[in-house]
Amino acid sequence: MCQLLGMNANTPTDVMFSFTGLATRADEHKDGFGIGFFEDRGVRLFVDHHSARQSPVAQLVKTYPIRSDNVIAHIRKATQGRVALENTHPFQRELWGRYWVFAHNGNLVDFHPRLHAAFRPVGDTDSERAFCWLMQELAKAHAGVPAIAELTRTLAELMPTLHRHGTFNMLLSNGQALWAHASTHLHWVVRQHPFGAVALRDEDLSVDFAHHTTPKDRVAVIATEPLTQHEAWTAFTCGELKVFVDGQPLG
Amino acid sequence: MCQLLGMNANTPTDVMFSFTGLATRADEHKDGFGIGFFEDRGVRLFVDHHSARQSPVAQLVKTYPIRSDNVIAHIRKATQGRVALENTHPFQRELWGRYWVFAHNGNLVDFHPRLHAAFRPVGDTDSERAFCWLMQELAKAHAGVPAIAELTRTLAELMPTLHRHGTFNMLLSNGQALWAHASTHLHWVVRQHPFGAVALRDEDLSVDFAHHTTPKDRVAVIATEPLTQHEAWTAFTCGELKVFVDGQPLG
Repeated sequence: MCQLLGMNANTPTDVMFSFTGLATRADEHKDGFGIGFFEDRGVRLFVDHHSARQSPVAQLVKTYPIRSDNVIAHIRKATQGRVALENTHPFQRELWGRYWVFAHNGNLVDFHPRLHAAFRPVGDTDSERAFCWLMQELAKAHAGVPAIAELTRTLAELMPTLHRHGTFNMLLSNGQALWAHASTHLHWVVRQHPFGAVALRDEDLSVDFAHHTTPKDRVAVIATEPLTQHEAWTAFTCGELKVFVDGQPLG
Repeated sequence: MCQLLGMNANTPTDVMFSFTGLATRADEHKDGFGIGFFEDRGVRLFVDHHSARQSPVAQLVKTYPIRSDNVIAHIRKATQGRVALENTHPFQRELWGRYWVFAHNGNLVDFHPRLHAAFRPVGDTDSERAFCWLMQELAKAHAGVPAIAELTRTLAELMPTLHRHGTFNMLLSNGQALWAHASTHLHWVVRQHPFGAVALRDEDLSVDFAHHTTPKDRVAVIATEPLTQHEAWTAFTCGELKVFVDGQPLG
């Protein structure tokens, strides 16, 4: 199964610790990885079709503290589409003068929507088709960037169409918020004051966030499976869509 | 002045040598750098708003041999737009199911085209506006990816509109070809059999391409100023548009 990792914070935060936890699970996921960092409106997207264990690009991400408000990472186990750079998540498009970054875990069966607008897949995955369709439908529903609550309502209307075609765990961000939808496996946790020490589940690594934070900092982390021990991760229910803003779920 | 670097090859080739030559000139260009690598239809785009001298991302690019058919790199000296990730070249968009990568050197004055289609700037540079306008006009002129010669004719019709607004040295690629347009400074060279030793102009570094190539390899390099000594670089004339395919200029 692919692994997803999302981060939404109220102050630019690095994800070296969580990404290390994710990359540890990459043993059986040799089909590439990618990570997109929003810095305000700008995006850095690092992708590699080598595994997150071996890639020099992954090494950079683990050691260079890129501080970001919204992060989406994906470690791929190919189900549809060959192993190639153009099939590596996350995918990126521009809509309404904002970049959008998207990653998907799951498998959509017989999903071939009519893509009649400005968003076409470059690769041949079900995931990129789903992303292009989402962008197309958002563009039809709103003339410009709407308020986050309104965008969330539109996305909530669109999710069941995708969900009907199979497993659709996804992360989506435009740099202002992070949306997460689960069919099967997705968990979230919020870290905030008082911060403490946290240990990764799969690797002998821990960090004391109290040393790296201020009392105002708040960070939401979303992942396929809980990444840490002794933290209160909450599982998404089937078909649940959540939006994270300023390091916490809205509404 | 910003520095541009382009590479178009008939076989995937790394640009560590040329990028090192470009980064050497980055002393007075502290406003970010970026480089986009096409690997078939896929793209890796590395951007940083730190200088190419200091950035760990630039260090990765200088040492990790990413083999690519088409490369566009840019070292920025800000003229319009603040120093921010969203203003860092190259820019990327998708059109007709292909990624397009664009970088610009120069300054367009009073260029505020009507952007009524699907391509909107995310940042606030004249360069990204020009790119969005080019994408819009290409989308209007053709229903799908046309032949390279036809695309070149359309681009040749569009260039004077941009050129009229100021200096417009640019590189553009969709992974199939690399287009280069010059107002002022742009040079190109083709490396092919028999390959020999080449030395950078600005740094004490040379490479013997004979050790790294086969007789069939052919690479075109395009740069603001010649990067090497003792190679026959050709200067673009003012208003000249050239398209490079399989490591050589077409037509």
